Amino acid sequence: MSASDHPHVAVLVGASVAPFRDGIAAALTTRWQLVWIPDDVAQSSAVLANAEAAVTNFYGAHWPLAPKLRLLHVPGAGYDGIALDAVPTGVRVCNVFEHEPGVSEWTLLAMLEWCHRLGDADRALRRGDWLRSSRFGGPPDGELAGKTLVIVGLGRIGRAVARRAAAFDMRVLAVNRSADKSDPNVERVVGLDRLHDTLAIADFVVLGCALTPETRGLIDDRALAAMKPTAVLVNPARGPVVDEGALYRALSDRRIAGAAIDTWWDYPANRDEAASRAPSLAYPFHTLDNVILSAHIAGWTTGTLARRPVEIAKNLDRLARGEPLVNVVH
Amino acid sequence: MSASDHPHVAVLVGASVAPFRDGIAAALTTRWQLVWIPDDVAQSSAVLANAEAAVTNFYGAHWPLAPKLRLLHVPGAGYDGIALDAVPTGVRVCNVFEHEPGVSEWTLLAMLEWCHRLGDADRALRRGDWLRSSRFGGPPDGELAGKTLVIVGLGRIGRAVARRAAAFDMRVLAVNRSADKSDPNVERVVGLDRLHDTLAIADFVVLGCALTPETRGLIDDRALAAMKPTAVLVNPARGPVVDEGALYRALSDRRIAGAAIDTWWDYPANRDEAASRAPSLAYPFHTLDNVILSAHIAGWTTGTLARRPVEIAKNLDRLARGEPLVNVVH
Repeated sequence: MSASDHPHVAVLVGASVAPFRDGIAAALTTRWQLVWIPDDVAQSSAVLANAEAAVTNFYGAHWPLAPKLRLLHVPGAGYDGIALDAVPTGVRVCNVFEHEPGVSEWTLLAMLEWCHRLGDADRALRRGDWLRSSRFGGPPDGELAGKTLVIVGLGRIGRAVARRAAAFDMRVLAVNRSADKSDPNVERVVGLDRLHDTLAIADFVVLGCALTPETRGLIDDRALAAMKPTAVLVNPARGPVVDEGALYRALSDRRIAGAAIDTWWDYPANRDEAASRAPSLAYPFHTLDNVILSAHIAGWTTGTLARRPVEIAKNLDRLARGEPLVNVVH
Repeated sequence: MSASDHPHVAVLVGASVAPFRDGIAAALTTRWQLVWIPDDVAQSSAVLANAEAAVTNFYGAHWPLAPKLRLLHVPGAGYDGIALDAVPTGVRVCNVFEHEPGVSEWTLLAMLEWCHRLGDADRALRRGDWLRSSRFGGPPDGELAGKTLVIVGLGRIGRAVARRAAAFDMRVLAVNRSADKSDPNVERVVGLDRLHDTLAIADFVVLGCALTPETRGLIDDRALAAMKPTAVLVNPARGPVVDEGALYRALSDRRIAGAAIDTWWDYPANRDEAASRAPSLAYPFHTLDNVILSAHIAGWTTGTLARRPVEIAKNLDRLARGEPLVNVVH
């Protein structure tokens, strides 16, 4: 392409995509103009009229016309914010991974924190309380070693969790849509028909599946009832894989021991709301003492932020060159 | 031994040993009478007069006469509470491990917590603050993947940490008294003469060495000055391996980024003092915001508590049968 040609135009939509801009720009080998626009895309109809690509977590029928659009690239793995039935013919939807290290680290951190309660330990010692020490008769903490981990959904996240959990001498089992997968760190992979049987032997259950019609509400009253009262559910996947009311009841009635929740059923609509809104609008999870809560941070690491823009830039380059795109989901 | 013979007598000394009693009793295959006595052994001279073995963290010249004593068994790895020069001729000192899973889990937990700040995340979301989410422009967290871990002392703990850290895709190096050791999870083992060079490339430094005259004060002003300003020191070993004042100054001046401290320079003398005493009598570590503190809990897990009594019972059985003891340190 000669310097006199117009560059291709890509829009980067919303606060969550803004941090990718410099990384994408640095990695591109074809000429693109990158334009950041706010989440309220209606304000940006002029730039959208010229955009060939959009890096965005959201897309819907409310978007202004974008006749040149050929690529909607989500900046993460989940594309449940893209209304696929509203995507015009000829527009590809791509996703990007690279968050497996961060998400699997968050997952192991949550399980380790559940066992060893380091946050409590720090607060206690800062106020002068040594009584958790064995020297003064303190009760022992739990341990991951020897515990059974059941991973639901043996994708990239699931495999990354399995590898780390195996190094802690956990026994790792997986439940997956197709039971014919295998993994060197997983003792056995079973199909979804064996979900409840397998949950019944878990000390920890980690959700690693995408949100699809098949997985929505997969962890319901019956699945939670199958778990041991000492078991802990860890969800870095997507909130609605779990039936929200069923989980709240199981936790508040202590029918399972606890949960670590990073992904939610609904999110604040904007930054103002995000400054002061309960994690759930429907159930007071934030009042429970047997949960570890975080605001969808698991995959949001410096490593993810370094790796993802490079992968997105490669797809923009492929688009500019007319080459086949990678990680096409629609 | 016939049923008419007197059983052998072993004393279990102090609160920290009391939880081992049932496990030792259950695992013994020879006849022992197990008698718990309080830390103030002067009160128990009658039972000590008959004791052939003592399970204890402490021993000194102040102990009442125990003419039948043949074994001082510490219930952990560290035996720095045993005044070796006061131990009578003919009395063996044995230790026991089995805490590698717990200590290495605490170590990885501390490093993961440093990167991902799950405690902060939980507190923030409970008060309605979602602003750490990338959706609302939150800053990314750190990641262990790709970071360099330097383990000082490649013993059982060091190797257990190395295996877990390698599964997180950390680069693992070790500094050890003898550099001719190797480990499949350690890229390179160097001698103590290379300590400062090696500390200089660490993102995390984990101490895994015993407290000996050679390691006392090993991490001093010069060692800390060799570390990167972004590096974090993790000490689940023994407090005095680190020069306390040097560490406090390095932390409060931000010459290193932070520390996770489980082992201390001095401990409360008794349970009353342990209810309300600063973690350090010399320096206000508890006022720093770049430290994670705990009260010597790393190895104190249900797993350790299940495994150690079995090993101690095996040594009592060996003593009763006149067989050679295992894990003799003196």
